[in-house]
Amino acid sequence: MSKRIVLALGGNALGADLAEQMVAVQSTSNAIADLVEQGHHVVITHGNGPQVGMIQMAFEAASMTYAHSPVLPMSVCVALSQGYIGYDLQNALHEALLNRGIDKPVATLITQVEVDENDPAFADPTKPIGSFFSKEEADAMVAKGAHMKEDAGRGWRRVVASPQPIDVIEKKTVRLMFDAGQVVITVGGGGIPVTRHGHHLKGASAVVDKDLASAKLAEMIDADLLIILTAVEKVALNFRKPNQQWLDRLSIEDGERYLAEGHFAEGSMRPKVESALSFASSKPGRQALITMLSKAREGIEGKTGTVVG
Amino acid sequence: MSKRIVLALGGNALGADLAEQMVAVQSTSNAIADLVEQGHHVVITHGNGPQVGMIQMAFEAASMTYAHSPVLPMSVCVALSQGYIGYDLQNALHEALLNRGIDKPVATLITQVEVDENDPAFADPTKPIGSFFSKEEADAMVAKGAHMKEDAGRGWRRVVASPQPIDVIEKKTVRLMFDAGQVVITVGGGGIPVTRHGHHLKGASAVVDKDLASAKLAEMIDADLLIILTAVEKVALNFRKPNQQWLDRLSIEDGERYLAEGHFAEGSMRPKVESALSFASSKPGRQALITMLSKAREGIEGKTGTVVG
Repeated sequence: MSKRIVLALGGNALGADLAEQMVAVQSTSNAIADLVEQGHHVVITHGNGPQVGMIQMAFEAASMTYAHSPVLPMSVCVALSQGYIGYDLQNALHEALLNRGIDKPVATLITQVEVDENDPAFADPTKPIGSFFSKEEADAMVAKGAHMKEDAGRGWRRVVASPQPIDVIEKKTVRLMFDAGQVVITVGGGGIPVTRHGHHLKGASAVVDKDLASAKLAEMIDADLLIILTAVEKVALNFRKPNQQWLDRLSIEDGERYLAEGHFAEGSMRPKVESALSFASSKPGRQALITMLSKAREGIEGKTGTVVG
Repeated sequence: MSKRIVLALGGNALGADLAEQMVAVQSTSNAIADLVEQGHHVVITHGNGPQVGMIQMAFEAASMTYAHSPVLPMSVCVALSQGYIGYDLQNALHEALLNRGIDKPVATLITQVEVDENDPAFADPTKPIGSFFSKEEADAMVAKGAHMKEDAGRGWRRVVASPQPIDVIEKKTVRLMFDAGQVVITVGGGGIPVTRHGHHLKGASAVVDKDLASAKLAEMIDADLLIILTAVEKVALNFRKPNQQWLDRLSIEDGERYLAEGHFAEGSMRPKVESALSFASSKPGRQALITMLSKAREGIEGKTGTVVG
C-alpha cells in the first residue's frame, strides 16, 4: 500500500558538522530510499539545531573581525541552514535512489512558516540552539544580552523563542511536487519563522519546533502518515525509570491524558507526541508513527514503533 | 501574448548587503510582478557575487576565532547564498504579486549545475567574488593561496574558476513549477557547481556564470524568451567610445562575428551576449533580450533593449 508520508528527521540524522553531515546523510538517505523504493511518496523535513547555531556564530565572529560583515537575524540564519543541509541531503538521497534504479527528482525548497507575533513563546525563549558552553562562558554571553539555558547536563546553550506554527507559506509548491511524485525537502529547521503584517511577512527571532511544523505541513498537503524520527524505537511512559513502559500504540485520548499528567520530556519527546497527536486528530484516517529511522520501514508495516491515532 | 520567460537578474538588482538587499528586492520585485501581471510565466535566476563572497569571508573569520568552526567549500557557500537571497526575493515578490491581487506561489529551489571536472577554466580562475581589497591585502591573501585579480580599477578581488554549465540537476522540478504557473527562483549564483562521478555529484570550487547557467536552464525547460538584465538599456558596439553604436537587434551571425572580433567586455557584457546567442540558437523561435530591469516590459513588447536571435 503506497502511503503519502511526511518524514521528520531528527538532528542525529544529519551530524553536527560538515564532515559528519556528509556521512550521516548517506545512511539517512539509504533508509529514506528504502521507503521510496516500496512505493511511498515522501516529503522530508528536518531539524537544524547544531547547523543554525554554527551559522549564527560564524557571522557573529565575522562581524567582530570585519566592520562590514553583518550579524544575521535568526530568520536569515534558518534560511542559510536550509541551503546548507538541503544541498547535501538532496544530493545524497538522489544518489541513493539512482543506486536503486529510481530516477526521481529530489529538491529542497526554501520554506517559511508563519507564527503569531503575539505568541507567548516570544516572552520566554526555551529552544536550545548551537554549541555547548561552560557556565562562565554562558554568564559572559548573558551579560551581552543572549538567552542561555543549561541543557540536560551537557552544558549551557543559547535559547530562542519557539512559537507555534500557523501556516506553511510554500505549501502549494510542496503539494505540487508531492502530488507529482517528486521528493521534496522542506520546512528545514522548522521553517524560516515569519509573522504576517498585511501582505508583508517579517522574519521573527525564533526557531519553530520542526515536529510541530511538520505536523502542520502534513495536514496542509493531505498526507496520511506523519513519521517523527527520534533516537529510540518507541515512546515510553516513565522513560528510563524502573517502571518504564514501551508503547506500541497511543490513542489520541491516552496521549492527551499522558501529556496532561506530565509524561514525556520537554524539548525532547513531548513536542514529538504533541505533533503526532495534532496530526492524527486533524482528520479521520490520519496516523503518526514515532520511531527511529532504521525502524521506519518495519514501523510502516505495523511491526514496531509507536503508532499514534 | 503570454510568454515563457527565464529572467536573469544582475547583482545590482539585489544590493550588496542585507539592508541594501531588502530595499533592492522591492523595486526588483515590482518590475517582475509587472511581467507576471501581463500574463507571462516567469522563472527567476540571479547572481550572488557580493553575497557568496560575504558568506565565505564570514566562515573564514569564524574559523580563525573558533577552532570548531568550518571553512566552507565554495559549493557550500553558493548553497547558503541561494537560501540567503531566495528567502528575501521570494518574500518580496510574493508581496508585490499580492499587492496586485495575484496569489501565485513563489518559491526558491536549491539548485545544482553540473560542470566538467576537465573544464580548462579550473586551471585559470577568472571570476571575481566578494569584497574589494588593496594591493597590499591582496598580496597577503595570494601568499596564503588565494587567487586574486585587479577588477576594472575598483581594487583587488578573489577570483575562482568559472566552468561551462552542462546540466541543471533540478530541471524537472523547475519545469514542474513553471508549467503549473508557479514562480520559481532557481540557479542562484549560477547554481551550486558540481561534477559527476557515476551517481555521485561532488561540489566543485567554482562559480558558474549565472547568465550561461540561465541560458542552459531556459533551453532545458523550453522557455521561449531569455531576458538577461544588466545596467544598460541596450548592448553597444565600441561601448563608451566615440564610435559607440547601440544595437536594437543582434542576429546570431552578427553576434558571433562581434564576439570573434573581440567586442564586449570580459566578465561583463561578453558572457551575456554569449548566453543570449547560446539560447537563441538552440531552437527556432527562441529569442533573448538584453536590457535593464526597468525596461524589461517595453523590451518584451519590442520597444527597447537588444533583441538577440
